[in-house]
Amino acid sequence: MGPGPSDVGPSVLKAMSMPLVGHLDPVFVKMMEEIKAMLRGIFLTQNEMTFPVSGTGSAGMEFCFVNLIEPGDEVVIGVNGVFGTRMVDVAERCGAKVTKVEAPWGRIIEAQAVAEAMKGKKPKVVAVVHAETSTGALTPVEEIAKIAHAAGALFVLDTVTSLGGCPVRIDDWQVDAVYSGTQKCLSCPPGLSPVSLSPRALEAARTRKTKVQSWYLDVNLLASYWGQERVYHHTAPISMNYALHEALRLVMVEGLENRWKRHQENHQLLREGLTKLGLTLASQEGHQLWQLNAVAVPTGADEAGVRKRLLTDFGIEVGAGLGPLKGKIWRVGLMGETSKPENVKAFLSALETCLK
Amino acid sequence: MGPGPSDVGPSVLKAMSMPLVGHLDPVFVKMMEEIKAMLRGIFLTQNEMTFPVSGTGSAGMEFCFVNLIEPGDEVVIGVNGVFGTRMVDVAERCGAKVTKVEAPWGRIIEAQAVAEAMKGKKPKVVAVVHAETSTGALTPVEEIAKIAHAAGALFVLDTVTSLGGCPVRIDDWQVDAVYSGTQKCLSCPPGLSPVSLSPRALEAARTRKTKVQSWYLDVNLLASYWGQERVYHHTAPISMNYALHEALRLVMVEGLENRWKRHQENHQLLREGLTKLGLTLASQEGHQLWQLNAVAVPTGADEAGVRKRLLTDFGIEVGAGLGPLKGKIWRVGLMGETSKPENVKAFLSALETCLK
Repeated sequence: MGPGPSDVGPSVLKAMSMPLVGHLDPVFVKMMEEIKAMLRGIFLTQNEMTFPVSGTGSAGMEFCFVNLIEPGDEVVIGVNGVFGTRMVDVAERCGAKVTKVEAPWGRIIEAQAVAEAMKGKKPKVVAVVHAETSTGALTPVEEIAKIAHAAGALFVLDTVTSLGGCPVRIDDWQVDAVYSGTQKCLSCPPGLSPVSLSPRALEAARTRKTKVQSWYLDVNLLASYWGQERVYHHTAPISMNYALHEALRLVMVEGLENRWKRHQENHQLLREGLTKLGLTLASQEGHQLWQLNAVAVPTGADEAGVRKRLLTDFGIEVGAGLGPLKGKIWRVGLMGETSKPENVKAFLSALETCLK
Repeated sequence: MGPGPSDVGPSVLKAMSMPLVGHLDPVFVKMMEEIKAMLRGIFLTQNEMTFPVSGTGSAGMEFCFVNLIEPGDEVVIGVNGVFGTRMVDVAERCGAKVTKVEAPWGRIIEAQAVAEAMKGKKPKVVAVVHAETSTGALTPVEEIAKIAHAAGALFVLDTVTSLGGCPVRIDDWQVDAVYSGTQKCLSCPPGLSPVSLSPRALEAARTRKTKVQSWYLDVNLLASYWGQERVYHHTAPISMNYALHEALRLVMVEGLENRWKRHQENHQLLREGLTKLGLTLASQEGHQLWQLNAVAVPTGADEAGVRKRLLTDFGIEVGAGLGPLKGKIWRVGLMGETSKPENVKAFLSALETCLK
């Protein structure tokens, strides 16, 4: 019940133990097509260029920035937690001139603040984190996407923790580049990063003046492997793709809306239980993530001690606060397979005991 | 029996289906230490900074170049196949001024040619591919390493296909940066890239003037996660590390020298069988890889037709030639678990039938 990896279902674990085939084998090629189709269904996008990058979520973040940014480009980034901070670092390593739109950790990035930061600028990219895993806040992004597009910028979105756990609508929201992770609400082991690029983003990558600084993440090369040409690029992580295929199938079987609803209901159950214990969530009211709950550590409680006892006495892992939230919150994940009423109840009961 | 992924043993497949733990869980941290120790044993190095990069072999290649090279640095690269060509591309994307030392595909890079190419230059890095998977040639590297060091350069080595299948002696040969893959002679699924940096290479990365252009592959950040500090960087691919742990354990159980000997013997068996069929290996005599055999397609044979029939009628996958060797060779892998006398015999028998 930490901030991920979440629990993985038995059929996904079993899929990984299947014998290997070649990365250009007809059987694997068919599986690649099915993975792309299912990812489109889950991202709610028609984008042709939708596939898993062969690395974890941070590689997906880097994939988006290295392909879209050239040295000297202006980039506006929302920073309200660890992952916005990381975006700034990654973008700067691509040579971007970054303007930060900062908000206190635990609060959302306001569209108005983005609009103000953009005054007098012509950014190539505007980027925000949808679900900040480090704080439990969910930033509404539709308005920010409009502001970005009105200024001629591409809109980049981090959905590492949101995808599969709450509404993510890439085409409706007009997101140009999005990345996610497998080990959160998709309940697949970490190792791949689902990404999707709009035709506009793809065009920007294709018409760059300079080569993409990463060979491994260059979408112009990856498009020939994940597209119809099947030109050998790198050896895809076969077993991880088996696992992702099965994990995505489970999402389709449950139904995307049902899955969101389940995450919402278990979050609600947790909230009610916390209220009974006199506890609250630390993230901004009205914008609290269903899948990652930032429980405010009550005055006088031993934050690290409670966390350690939860793990050793009850077998329950929860995450610590990071940065300015260190010692102030426990991060309770209810992601994918982990989002179950029995987990919520077991956690509440164990927490009550630890706080006595 | 293609150029990888090789067959994976049942206990390695089973390891991947174990339930997930957190990427900072004490159980996983202990496993990380064991992986590092076993990799040191297999690379034959004392290098502290020895660990698996969270990507495939090409990510390991990029790891070495992004950390060691800064824009404007001179780099000398041996090019005698696909992977030397790829090194040039990767190094140039890091801003390197590359001098190529070319040899015909199928032949080795001669130390003398490297020495001549370096005259009047002060390269920061000299890089070669040990075992060229695309051609079946094994370049002796000890002399090249000496030439590199005499000129004050760091020596980078690609051991993607050599590690675990033939002698690789990182400390004896004084290699400064080395990368490998898991899906060749280690017989683990693809998805991780074992790497090792000498203290000298690590110092070069630490004292750079510019930030490493990749956040995901920055050794200065990775050192804090894979070192004793355990600072969260990215979420390591837990299940892939389970698999690597078990695959490395199997190498240790067999014994490194026994494993090399097994690869040599099965290569010898293949050679003898090919001779009886009137066939030869296309790579340079005296420098032929044991684990990847470039069989010359005999005059009049239908290269693609034979390859397709081997797969569909006999369930045997072999690789095609690439670049200038397209249509001229079949690439027969005898790597890790796949290096077995029964595989050699089944292949020879099937090939004989296909050539009738």
